Amino acid sequence: MLQSDFGVKDGAVAAMKGVAVGVDPELKIYDLTHEIPAFNVWEGAYRLWQTAPYWPAGTVFVSVVDPGVGTTRKSVVARAKNGQYFVTPDNGTLTLIAEKLGLDAVREIDETKNRRAGSEGSYTFHGRDVYAYTGARLAAGVIKFEEVGPALDPAKVVSIEYDHGQVYSYVDSETDRRPISVGGGIPVLDPQYGNVWTNIDKTVFDQIVPTPKPGDRFEVIVTHYSEAFMASKGQAWSGPAGQQVFQGTVPYANSFGDVPVGQPLLYINSLMQVSFALNQGNFAATHHIGSGVDWNVWVRRAYDTK
Amino acid sequence: MLQSDFGVKDGAVAAMKGVAVGVDPELKIYDLTHEIPAFNVWEGAYRLWQTAPYWPAGTVFVSVVDPGVGTTRKSVVARAKNGQYFVTPDNGTLTLIAEKLGLDAVREIDETKNRRAGSEGSYTFHGRDVYAYTGARLAAGVIKFEEVGPALDPAKVVSIEYDHGQVYSYVDSETDRRPISVGGGIPVLDPQYGNVWTNIDKTVFDQIVPTPKPGDRFEVIVTHYSEAFMASKGQAWSGPAGQQVFQGTVPYANSFGDVPVGQPLLYINSLMQVSFALNQGNFAATHHIGSGVDWNVWVRRAYDTK
Amino acid sequence: MLQSDFGVKDGAVAAMKGVAVGVDPELKIYDLTHEIPAFNVWEGAYRLWQTAPYWPAGTVFVSVVDPGVGTTRKSVVARAKNGQYFVTPDNGTLTLIAEKLGLDAVREIDETKNRRAGSEGSYTFHGRDVYAYTGARLAAGVIKFEEVGPALDPAKVVSIEYDHGQVYSYVDSETDRRPISVGGGIPVLDPQYGNVWTNIDKTVFDQIVPTPKPGDRFEVIVTHYSEAFMASKGQAWSGPAGQQVFQGTVPYANSFGDVPVGQPLLYINSLMQVSFALNQGNFAATHHIGSGVDWNVWVRRAYDTK
Repeated sequence: MLQSDFGVKDGAVAAMKGVAVGVDPELKIYDLTHEIPAFNVWEGAYRLWQTAPYWPAGTVFVSVVDPGVGTTRKSVVARAKNGQYFVTPDNGTLTLIAEKLGLDAVREIDETKNRRAGSEGSYTFHGRDVYAYTGARLAAGVIKFEEVGPALDPAKVVSIEYDHGQVYSYVDSETDRRPISVGGGIPVLDPQYGNVWTNIDKTVFDQIVPTPKPGDRFEVIVTHYSEAFMASKGQAWSGPAGQQVFQGTVPYANSFGDVPVGQPLLYINSLMQVSFALNQGNFAATHHIGSGVDWNVWVRRAYDTK
Repeated sequence: MLQSDFGVKDGAVAAMKGVAVGVDPELKIYDLTHEIPAFNVWEGAYRLWQTAPYWPAGTVFVSVVDPGVGTTRKSVVARAKNGQYFVTPDNGTLTLIAEKLGLDAVREIDETKNRRAGSEGSYTFHGRDVYAYTGARLAAGVIKFEEVGPALDPAKVVSIEYDHGQVYSYVDSETDRRPISVGGGIPVLDPQYGNVWTNIDKTVFDQIVPTPKPGDRFEVIVTHYSEAFMASKGQAWSGPAGQQVFQGTVPYANSFGDVPVGQPLLYINSLMQVSFALNQGNFAATHHIGSGVDWNVWVRRAYDTK
Repeated sequence: MLQSDFGVKDGAVAAMKGVAVGVDPELKIYDLTHEIPAFNVWEGAYRLWQTAPYWPAGTVFVSVVDPGVGTTRKSVVARAKNGQYFVTPDNGTLTLIAEKLGLDAVREIDETKNRRAGSEGSYTFHGRDVYAYTGARLAAGVIKFEEVGPALDPAKVVSIEYDHGQVYSYVDSETDRRPISVGGGIPVLDPQYGNVWTNIDKTVFDQIVPTPKPGDRFEVIVTHYSEAFMASKGQAWSGPAGQQVFQGTVPYANSFGDVPVGQPLLYINSLMQVSFALNQGNFAATHHIGSGVDWNVWVRRAYDTK
């Protein structure tokens, strides 16, 4: 199971597969994606988490988004509690696997033993020379996990900090109802359709409305943090920490087709987190919304919803 | 055999494959394409027909171009007369398979039995939870076709209406010869090279010229229908039903290299239908030609051809 | 092992695979790339060489970059000295395999025997009807190499001429040192990252500096040849044969992370040839550098380097 930011325009991915086939021609090799944006370790971490739960125990994932290739960043193999293996530079790629699946054990790849013979002079393609090679040998049973190299502390793998979804609540004195806002981040977009995926879990969202019905309406605000914007506002600013990019009222729906073509909806995506879309349209492009640690979102049940 | 409009930038396709591998790790999984333009059911139907005839009987195709996911559109498995299976939403994707290969039997997927355990709360990714899962179980022999769900009438699968190629003939009184025009549609482009593929079968084209020789010349007109254009012309308009986008005389050739680089040719494509190209150029982009039900083409043997 | 310039937006690649699976469902089929720029035989040749050394003996490569499909160009199977097979039109695709791996034997495909039954009327998709079919039969052992067709002289396969890296040396009278320039071409870019790959082997480069140390600095000039530019300069011009596109001093580094983000480096790429990059940037786009036979590069040790 291979992931990288190599693209598929040249022979890099095919060279990795050739190394794996050379280890064992019976290995089953699949692609997760090779279209991770160049150097984007965070998105690599996200796609692993998006995919791994649907694969069997024992699957070996090789993920190579490696802007630090040739520097002192470590090369590791992590074993998750579900019995899957992850072969990757230790640069944050394991952030979400460690958090969501849990890591059982981590070993540093000993390149004196686990490196393609004759590749010592090449400093820029560890995907081929170290990761594909080690992953294939592990998957084929040529080496055991213990033979990867020395054990590391699973608690110390490099982790990327990010905003988790959280619930804010306050009493609205006028109505004496308790509207609760949910806040979170936008870790990634669904790039093919332009859907906006937040990291607000359904279980968090359910604290506002335990059983949302199609048609229930929600107020949504999306903000983009930038230092320039905050500086322009000065110390006294009490508004949101960033520029407001979108504000609107969006109905809840189970799926896209529940609203007319071109209309917005709030739905629970395939990872069971709050998301926004336009039915057969592109929510992100229409409203100029991006993803990453600078993007935040707030959702509140609209006042006029019963 | 998987097809979708998911793209390969994220983990969606890989999640589908993981589900299939989880059903049976020995399954052989191939990609048709995941670059169907988003929501374009017609192009999904076309690519199935372009590909299926070259695959063996028993192949299970899973096609997920599903703008109506989560609505009342049915999920089905169709068995073609050649023994291949097609797992898909019943939204028109089966149009050309039904017409060209013929359907032997169709069954609606019973989601109470044929759905990934634990996925009931997710409404937006039936590709993973229903189609890949059911297709894999069918391909692996875990279920028989009869266990998919209740039988449907094969004549009632959803079909997209489109213009078929047809022959128009009339007597030219001046020359007393019988030039015959062939008319048809442009179902798709060959997107990599910009070749224009019509739906005029070679057998239809042969009614003009039973044995066309390289160098025989043909008059070609391409029109694009739009309501705005027709309205601008008024009731009395007797011209073509749409704006004329291209008119020219194009030589017949067996293949691209039979004409100089950059020159146009009329040829019979790999599906044995009339097509147009520029040798090592892009006919569609050069002449601003698109594809779909709004596009039409007429071909007539040029007068000066013997 | 399939390579083409077909892209993956339509069903062409899937049709080729279907033909191969029809020959033998147990065949293991991999993709090298299908994103070779349309008609670019040179880049097809380069990607084969970039990849083949990492695959086992016996691997059958099918490469279809075939602007001359349907003309008199030959269809061949070449056996390299390492025991790999290459099924391709004989149009220059074998240039680098022949030069770097050496060809052991070449046979012309006899289409009366080695062509998909019923495909005789189709002139434009030999990738499906001839190359995938013959490659699959060879890989599956249905035919032996000798049954491909008549033997050809391996020395006569079509080869593309290109500039090889070479060393220029002269005495610098002022310093009495012997700086040596290395010149070469830019056969391809690393398209995902915008790195510039030259064809100057490390062994050639080592004649300037046998053991370059990170931080050693080199003067680099990149030129683009065009007839218009040369004509504008007239007969008396003694400058470089082409327009100077880049001039700068670049430090040597083992890998990208050895220089700050955004800074340039000269490094030895994964094919052990001199290359240029910006750490986490795009050297080619920043400096408007392309690739192909019109591009040249010179490298000289900077005077101030000890």
